[in-house]
Amino acid sequence: MCNACVIESVKQSMISRRSLFAGVAATGAAAIAASTLAARPALAQASGKVVDLTYVFDETFPTFDGVPGIAYEEAVNFDASGYQLWKITFFEHSGTHIDAPLHFSKDGLSVAELAPESLICPLCVIDITAKARDDANAALEAEDVEAFISAHGEIPKGACVAMNSGWGAKVATPEFRNTPDGKFAFPGFGKSATDLLAQMGVAAIASDTLSLDPGSSADFAVHNSWLPSGHYGIENLANVDQLPATGATIFVGAPKHARGTGGPARVMAVV
Amino acid sequence: MCNACVIESVKQSMISRRSLFAGVAATGAAAIAASTLAARPALAQASGKVVDLTYVFDETFPTFDGVPGIAYEEAVNFDASGYQLWKITFFEHSGTHIDAPLHFSKDGLSVAELAPESLICPLCVIDITAKARDDANAALEAEDVEAFISAHGEIPKGACVAMNSGWGAKVATPEFRNTPDGKFAFPGFGKSATDLLAQMGVAAIASDTLSLDPGSSADFAVHNSWLPSGHYGIENLANVDQLPATGATIFVGAPKHARGTGGPARVMAVV
Repeated sequence: MCNACVIESVKQSMISRRSLFAGVAATGAAAIAASTLAARPALAQASGKVVDLTYVFDETFPTFDGVPGIAYEEAVNFDASGYQLWKITFFEHSGTHIDAPLHFSKDGLSVAELAPESLICPLCVIDITAKARDDANAALEAEDVEAFISAHGEIPKGACVAMNSGWGAKVATPEFRNTPDGKFAFPGFGKSATDLLAQMGVAAIASDTLSLDPGSSADFAVHNSWLPSGHYGIENLANVDQLPATGATIFVGAPKHARGTGGPARVMAVV
Repeated sequence: MCNACVIESVKQSMISRRSLFAGVAATGAAAIAASTLAARPALAQASGKVVDLTYVFDETFPTFDGVPGIAYEEAVNFDASGYQLWKITFFEHSGTHIDAPLHFSKDGLSVAELAPESLICPLCVIDITAKARDDANAALEAEDVEAFISAHGEIPKGACVAMNSGWGAKVATPEFRNTPDGKFAFPGFGKSATDLLAQMGVAAIASDTLSLDPGSSADFAVHNSWLPSGHYGIENLANVDQLPATGATIFVGAPKHARGTGGPARVMAVV
């Protein structure tokens, strides 16, 4: 590493700790870095821009079951007290939020128990907008993961893999949750993809829709396999169309309420 | 910048965007980086370790007013439904949380309106443990900021300045909130310090106690000046004793509930 690049050690050592790529023999940080650069050309365009991947969460934000996800009660009034604050009630799985393993396993990790290192990680974005235009319940399958790897290189161990289905453009419309003729529908991950991602050592998946599974799922196959195996997920991820396929770092700011099965989070990326 | 250091551009360009140091003529990224390295030797020790600055938040976590800050109601039961989730009620200003300007100004920025760029920033930690041992209501004053700068160099514009009062060691005891003889007391910032930090372009302050102001404050001078002037604060920051004085980057994962005056957040640092 050149002397002029000391600051990069923050980033570089995060990468080396995770032995970044499956199949790369970790013979030292320099070797890993060289392999990384060869495999991930998008890193060369990194600009340091912060992209906020979080929707503003209010009573009107769409939810899976159609019930408002948050409610406000005034706890302290500004005119009366010179300051103000709310008492807030929310259902854990609403807004831009995470699913901890405990959501779909009786004794899985809670949101407070997830390793902090797993919440700051490389981000890969797989685009399925073309098939989602034809099918509101399109699934990101293993073949999409394989096509991504062919185009962009291996997916880092410990990464978060986000789906871009184009659904973000619908968030302020009824079509975020239902087809124009009123059928519950949105894209999600298929189990063939998440099984493959689990084999690769991926830490998290993120959906730009209301759920990890497509709206048409009858068995919640992804929820029922990905989460109990110790992974976490993110739902309602915003602005995925502003992200590069590779090269961004995601920060998953999931508050640590004890015994939490997930919950609203602040998710951002540095691109 | 050397070709081998492409990855650092994420970090480096974040720094250059913020014109890092007051008084440094920004003649280009390379010039800024050189000045930065000269002024901030701690960066040279950066290891990429993630430090979780967030306490687990439950009904027993100490609060300013002594009322439990969070309550849980079972919304879906695992044995009945195969998955589980909570309906959670919290007061915004409890747990490790942020104070948005709106908390102490009628029309200030809400937590959802804060610039995302201000939530990922350089972190400086000022140690006042010595005087806090003698005075449970010790305040971090302008002279402490000046001593810090003499020892460690200028504080970057856009930075977060955290107080280390040593109070983290008391979090599981009544002394986090009260003296052994039962008087409400804990350290905080003094207005002389925060006025100076505001002049320097600092974005945020963070306290390792229940409040930005010391427990003995009668007028909430810091809340009433720092927040209305468009800055934000963090309270109950954990593990500040694990942080270097300079060189860490803080990530403030504050969920974006609409109209929020602040709220529980996931705060982490890369050191």
